[in-house]
Amino acid sequence: MALFMKAYVYVSLKKSVLDPQGKTIQGALNKIGYKGLQDVRQGKYFEITLNGGLSKDDAQAEVERMAREVLTNPVIEEFRFSLEE
Amino acid sequence: MALFMKAYVYVSLKKSVLDPQGKTIQGALNKIGYKGLQDVRQGKYFEITLNGGLSKDDAQAEVERMAREVLTNPVIEEFRFSLEE
Repeated sequence: MALFMKAYVYVSLKKSVLDPQGKTIQGALNKIGYKGLQDVRQGKYFEITLNGGLSKDDAQAEVERMAREVLTNPVIEEFRFSLEE
Repeated sequence: MALFMKAYVYVSLKKSVLDPQGKTIQGALNKIGYKGLQDVRQGKYFEITLNGGLSKDDAQAEVERMAREVLTNPVIEEFRFSLEE
């Protein structure tokens, strides 16, 4: 039987794009007293369980396609992903 | 000179908590024609740059404290994090 695979997709704003949400979190953390913060940026994170009907290579391609075409806005965001068996 | 460290904090809903946002994304992906999806869950992701004033151990403790006390709602969420030099 094919095993369930897990894919983890991380979507973050491009370096060149301002992240006011991250800045707000950083300001709040500073105010509460956390030290040593240089920068905070927030992104999204998707945990995708695949039903095992795909080979590892197919799964890799399918997840990359999903991440690129649907989960990411290519104008302002970039993504990376990993696949686990 | 101390180096900047990067911390990555991943916050996700606990397994026992329903994730309607993830379900909606899953439904949309299915409708568009992506195959092999069993489950989709969405989480948050924080990229924290530390200014290098902390030792690795202190940074580890500080990031864990931030994640536990501020970035995560312990009632419905759980987190994991990694630290990179």
